[in-house]
This record gives sequence, structure tokens and C-alpha cells, in this order.
Amino acid sequence: MTLKLFYTPGTCALASHIVLEEAGATYDTVRIDFRANQQQSPDYLKVNPKGRVPALVTDDGVLTETPAILAFVAQSFPDSQLAPFDDAFAFGRVQAFNSYLCSTVHVNHAHRMRGYRWADDPAAHEAMRKKVAQNMTACFDLIESEMFAGPWVMGEHFTICDPYMFTLTQWLEADGVDPSRFPKVSDHRQRMAARAAVARALDAERAS
Amino acid sequence: MTLKLFYTPGTCALASHIVLEEAGATYDTVRIDFRANQQQSPDYLKVNPKGRVPALVTDDGVLTETPAILAFVAQSFPDSQLAPFDDAFAFGRVQAFNSYLCSTVHVNHAHRMRGYRWADDPAAHEAMRKKVAQNMTACFDLIESEMFAGPWVMGEHFTICDPYMFTLTQWLEADGVDPSRFPKVSDHRQRMAARAAVARALDAERAS
Repeated sequence: MTLKLFYTPGTCALASHIVLEEAGATYDTVRIDFRANQQQSPDYLKVNPKGRVPALVTDDGVLTETPAILAFVAQSFPDSQLAPFDDAFAFGRVQAFNSYLCSTVHVNHAHRMRGYRWADDPAAHEAMRKKVAQNMTACFDLIESEMFAGPWVMGEHFTICDPYMFTLTQWLEADGVDPSRFPKVSDHRQRMAARAAVARALDAERAS
Repeated sequence: MTLKLFYTPGTCALASHIVLEEAGATYDTVRIDFRANQQQSPDYLKVNPKGRVPALVTDDGVLTETPAILAFVAQSFPDSQLAPFDDAFAFGRVQAFNSYLCSTVHVNHAHRMRGYRWADDPAAHEAMRKKVAQNMTACFDLIESEMFAGPWVMGEHFTICDPYMFTLTQWLEADGVDPSRFPKVSDHRQRMAARAAVARALDAERAS
């Protein structure tokens, strides 16, 4: 299988990058430069008409959206055991966690830098920025107290939830949140950063 | 399998309600009254600490988040063939579509009535409301031109994407969008409304 990941450093594409490494996949990467607005270039819009990253080009076509890419990689590399496809409820929990990250946590974060998506008034953007730390704190309070099973997100088994949550924890300081408030999440973040696959993905994004 | 769906009429819980009907599942429903703020009641927070609908109680525990519930029902009732679990790429496309609905389309819609989630300033809420029609139009332009394969969302096969998209099209008029702009989506909406399973779910929500 030929795989090519379109990514931008510092974005949620890191989750897909890490999962490709964890799966032992062979893949190419293409860096999309947000500062040059390359995600809106005609060439990239042919890959992903939404003008966002990540996008994963496969032999069958292009996949977008982090929860979809993560599950696709897990299912394509079953030996890596990154998602419990044979157990509908266990897989449902994985999906529910990743769906919460994409539709609530990432969206809350996006209101700091990308308020222009939801309002044209600069004063509204400033009002949105002011609430980001509070919202991200509430999300990670809930993750810490209700969702995180430990030692990994889903419990004893490392899954595609772990790289995704790790990716979003990388944004906490810039979002004005003190990560020491979440001891289990912070410990998870340290153990994730120590994994060889995570280091390879981070090194590749820093070097690009 | 014992299943119980917590829902509120007019919300995205309709997608789960329809998919349970399409799957031929036996299930109970519990109506959560948003006007009484029942989603934040201590009893409901024990079911779903996020204080949102839908939530599906199963024999193994509670599932939340529409994309997760839809895939769980599809996987639990394989005879209904509501998702292509045996084809990682085809399933990835289903997931990508549903993930776009939850993380982009639903979020854009939510800025009309629930701007308080992302800012405290009433002027910011008004600025968000003003942009909802434009954002929802852009989303459905993209669905109409790039994502919708026809006759169903994914092509020849009816999947869990169809009830979910149908649910969000129910909001277009109130969001200030003219659905006649999207002929394929509008035709799909009519064909969906004519399905017996959809009528049963809608009737049940209206009667409650």
C-alpha cells in the first residue's frame, strides 16, 4: 500500500503522523505551509477540497478527518492492534473519545486563532479568545476525571486515542491552560513523548 | 441486547434514532427536556457527564457522540449492512463524512443558538449568528459538489451517513439557508423522509 500524508507542523495532523509510525507503515509526507496559505492552493484543493490538513492519499483515494484516518490506519495494519475492531462496544468507546476530541476539544482550541471562521467582527474574535482557556480546562477536567482509564486512554491497551489526545495536549500551554492541573493527562503526555514512534514523528515535523 | 436512547427532539440525536429504526433494533427511548435543562440534571450527568444528547445505554455501558453511536449500531446489526466494515477505505470514507458533519457542519450550526459556549459577550453571540447562514451554505455547497455520490451519500449503498446528513438538513431553513440551492441534497432529503424507518423516528419524537 502506498500512503502519503499531507500535514502541517503544530496541527492535529501530528496524530495521524504518530499513528502511521506506531503502525510501522511505510509512507511519504508532504508539508503544507499555512503561512503561505498553501492549504488553499489549487493543487492542494484537488487533494482535499476542504483546504485543511491532514489528508492521507491511499491506493483507493484520499481520506480526510483525523478520526477517519486513525481508524483506517489501525484497520489497515491489524498487527499493530491500535483499535479493537472485533468488539463493537470497545470500538465505539474509541470512536466516542476521538469524536469528542475533534468536535469539542479541537473546536474549543480553534476559537483562539481561527475565530474568523465563525464571526467577521474582530471584537467577537477577541471575546472568543478570552474563553479558550476556560473551555480547554473544562474539557481536560472531564477527560482527567471521567474519560481517561489509564495507563492509556482506553485502559491497558494503547489505541489510536493516545496519539490523538497527546496531540491536543501539546496545545495546552499556548491555550493558557496549566497542564499540572491534570496529573494523569500530564503523566500520559510524558510517557507518549518517550515513545520511539512519537519521537520520530515529532523529529520529522521539526526538521521539515 | 438491551438498548436505551436518550434524545431530545430537534437535535442530532435524530440520526441515532433513525439508524436504530433502520437496523431493526429493539430499544427504549428517554426524552431529555432541554427547556427544563434536564441534560444538566444530576441523574442525566450520571449517564453522560458531558450533559449532551444523544447517549445510548448498552449492555456493556454508555456510548456518546453521534459518529460512534451510528457505527456501533451498524456493527451490532450486521444484517442491516449500514456500514462497510470489511473494507478499510470504504469505512474510512463513511467515517470521514460523519466526522465532517460532527466537527464542522454541526459546529457551524451551533453558533446560531449556542454562541455562549465560545464567548461570554452578547455582541459576540450576535456576530456569530450573522455568519451561520454563510457557513452552512458553504458546507452544503461542498457536500453537494464534492462529497455526495448519489443516490445515497456514499453511492449505491445506503449507510449511516444518510440519516446523519438528513438530520442536519432539517436545520437548514432555520439557519437561514435556502435548500433549493442544493438539488441533490434536497432530493435526498425527500427520499429519506419517505422511508418508513425515518417516519417512525420522526413520529416518535413528535409524539413525545
